[in-house]
Amino acid sequence: MDRIFLKNITLDGRQVDIFISDGIFTSITPHSCETPLAAEGSEIVDCSGKTVMPGFVNMHTHAAMTLMRGIGEDMCLSDWLDHIWAIEAHLDEPFIYWGTKVAALEMIKTGTTAFNDMYWFSPIARKAAEEVGLRNMVSFTFLDNFDPSAAEHQKESCIAMHETVPSWGPRSSFAVSIHSVYTVSEPLILWVTEYARKHGLKIHVHIAETEKEVVDCRKAHGGLSPVEYLDSLGVLGPDVIAAHTLWLSDKDIEILGSRKVNCVHNINSNLKLASGNFFKADELAAAGANICLGTDGCASSNNLDMLEAMKTTAIVQKAMRHDPAALPLPDLLKMATANGAKALGANSGKIEEGYEADLQIIDTDSTFFLSPGPFLANFVYSAHSDCIVSLISGGRFVMRDRKVPAEREILEGGRAELELLKNIDK
Amino acid sequence: MDRIFLKNITLDGRQVDIFISDGIFTSITPHSCETPLAAEGSEIVDCSGKTVMPGFVNMHTHAAMTLMRGIGEDMCLSDWLDHIWAIEAHLDEPFIYWGTKVAALEMIKTGTTAFNDMYWFSPIARKAAEEVGLRNMVSFTFLDNFDPSAAEHQKESCIAMHETVPSWGPRSSFAVSIHSVYTVSEPLILWVTEYARKHGLKIHVHIAETEKEVVDCRKAHGGLSPVEYLDSLGVLGPDVIAAHTLWLSDKDIEILGSRKVNCVHNINSNLKLASGNFFKADELAAAGANICLGTDGCASSNNLDMLEAMKTTAIVQKAMRHDPAALPLPDLLKMATANGAKALGANSGKIEEGYEADLQIIDTDSTFFLSPGPFLANFVYSAHSDCIVSLISGGRFVMRDRKVPAEREILEGGRAELELLKNIDK
Repeated sequence: MDRIFLKNITLDGRQVDIFISDGIFTSITPHSCETPLAAEGSEIVDCSGKTVMPGFVNMHTHAAMTLMRGIGEDMCLSDWLDHIWAIEAHLDEPFIYWGTKVAALEMIKTGTTAFNDMYWFSPIARKAAEEVGLRNMVSFTFLDNFDPSAAEHQKESCIAMHETVPSWGPRSSFAVSIHSVYTVSEPLILWVTEYARKHGLKIHVHIAETEKEVVDCRKAHGGLSPVEYLDSLGVLGPDVIAAHTLWLSDKDIEILGSRKVNCVHNINSNLKLASGNFFKADELAAAGANICLGTDGCASSNNLDMLEAMKTTAIVQKAMRHDPAALPLPDLLKMATANGAKALGANSGKIEEGYEADLQIIDTDSTFFLSPGPFLANFVYSAHSDCIVSLISGGRFVMRDRKVPAEREILEGGRAELELLKNIDK
Repeated sequence: MDRIFLKNITLDGRQVDIFISDGIFTSITPHSCETPLAAEGSEIVDCSGKTVMPGFVNMHTHAAMTLMRGIGEDMCLSDWLDHIWAIEAHLDEPFIYWGTKVAALEMIKTGTTAFNDMYWFSPIARKAAEEVGLRNMVSFTFLDNFDPSAAEHQKESCIAMHETVPSWGPRSSFAVSIHSVYTVSEPLILWVTEYARKHGLKIHVHIAETEKEVVDCRKAHGGLSPVEYLDSLGVLGPDVIAAHTLWLSDKDIEILGSRKVNCVHNINSNLKLASGNFFKADELAAAGANICLGTDGCASSNNLDMLEAMKTTAIVQKAMRHDPAALPLPDLLKMATANGAKALGANSGKIEEGYEADLQIIDTDSTFFLSPGPFLANFVYSAHSDCIVSLISGGRFVMRDRKVPAEREILEGGRAELELLKNIDK
């Protein structure tokens, strides 16, 4: 395992030295000109003029959809879905492998050290993420479209996949995904929930992404909203990661809060697909929910850049609440880091001794940081992710000075997959 | 004047050679392996794998406010204004010079070749912009706060400033700014309008930025909205550049359209200050207005990045209209380029023979462009401005491979000014 000594780096406005060993922040001390004995033999990195931040935790992705971004732009949803489904009908392991690698490369270059994925061929996605060094939670996705034979097949496949988990690395975990209340039958929702609870797996689910989902659910389930319906089935709890949670009643908010659900906002996707624009961040947090941030898949959002997602989230919250003081920067930062880590059950998301060493190193030598304002305002509101020059994930450099070792290979692998896609699209 | 031959560059999906001389696109021809006689002696630049786009035209800035960005974040407007005014009380020429230079550097690094500025000490701002090679329209700003003696003083100052214009370079122009209906008296609005029309100057004005502005205006002016009031004074016409135009009645839209006013949307500023969120882009364009894009000043927006402004504009339009097909990419691109050039009266904003050579060169070798979708979707929705590797403004390179010659000097000059600000803030 790497031993790294980050010398003279800025942390919350103070100059510190950070010693990382065994993947953990072993010591964080005020900067001194001398290197301590404990750090001898470690790689010493002079970080003068640089600032350290926790790595981002992207709490909702469909990673391999990087290879579908830009398909069907400026189209209505039904036309767009036709384009996506034409490709998804031909998904295979190489597509998932290279699509996830491209996603991981993009996440690394934009400061993300961990992500929570809902897609297909998850052991392959896990392998791609592990190879480049990102923490990942991947899932078996249930989507039976109310077909009992599909449900049976998926249960078997999930169990088989779960059996491979013991061989996975320490920064990869396995979860189950219930795609949504409009694509998964009630018996299957109940089975998945029981299976997850029995095995201690997180449950990842799309909830209340569109108004139509809520209207249709109330019709189908005796007036219950998606939140009420899932709660009536016993699904909701602190082990649930709920993507979107956009169209919520006051009662829904109360339920999500009291069940301590992890609610993931994906602003760029919501705006671009015209799903909705008002995530009730304050209300959910006040009720007891753990609010997190994600990007959604690249086919809808259209990138995996958490810094961009932070800015859009903040300014849209201010606009929707008619209050420029809404969603202050420290709260926003937690949504993008510590809250996500908490949802994943990871001892990460903070730059503190004893936490896993997941961090970004920021170069502030640009116009974007030339300002009398605080670092965090410049980072979120002014800068772009190219200010993130290096990334350490689980105590290892995965990017140094904007260079990712496997970048060229990943871009070539991704392009080769795109060539194959061209034939499908015809 | 530079003579440049851009060889094998992608333009609208085709490979072309572009010859630039005397600041103009002299020829654009299908790529050939041979260099034509006309281009002999010019600088030949191999652009294989790169894409050309028109430079952005930022139609609403307060450029020198770069030095105030990040002040008073997450505060309500009145507290924020206290912070801004404490600094603005001490504005001087060095502040404007270095603030505008920092702004110009940021605009260059984010693909902008022309900007329309409303701020103080305009000849100094013009000098700063000219030195780094950006087209600029700067203005004398009228803001008398209904004080007749201030109005008289400003008239004299404007005339004196206008007299210096003949010595300005060909890519700098002089305009007048009427700050707003709530800060400029009626007699002064009338005088400025007459002065502008007599001398062929554009009129830059904030209109209907906030709901309060509209409510107050209707109270003060017999029920007239800001648009109706300014129209009743004869202000509105195709020579008017109206920033914001957010809070509009149907009648306002009809007036702005029939007067062919240039309406500038500044989405990030509008959202962040919670001014409003629904720019009626389609309605204004259909009525006959020329819709453009801007960033506003850095103290509110908080950067000058037009590519970021394009993405936010597009996705917010889709969300507000509940239509993912709203504001298609080609229309959005025009807002950020050709429409702005038209408003400035510049023969620019398009990559066509005979137009001024204002262009960006885009490097697509990244995950953001690894997609089956069109270039424009990747550029706007996925990528960030660091994909813009080179910029030619008025036929001259102002950035090459992300390097701007004066960058180091500008950052140092800006930082020295910030040191002085610290004393003021206390």
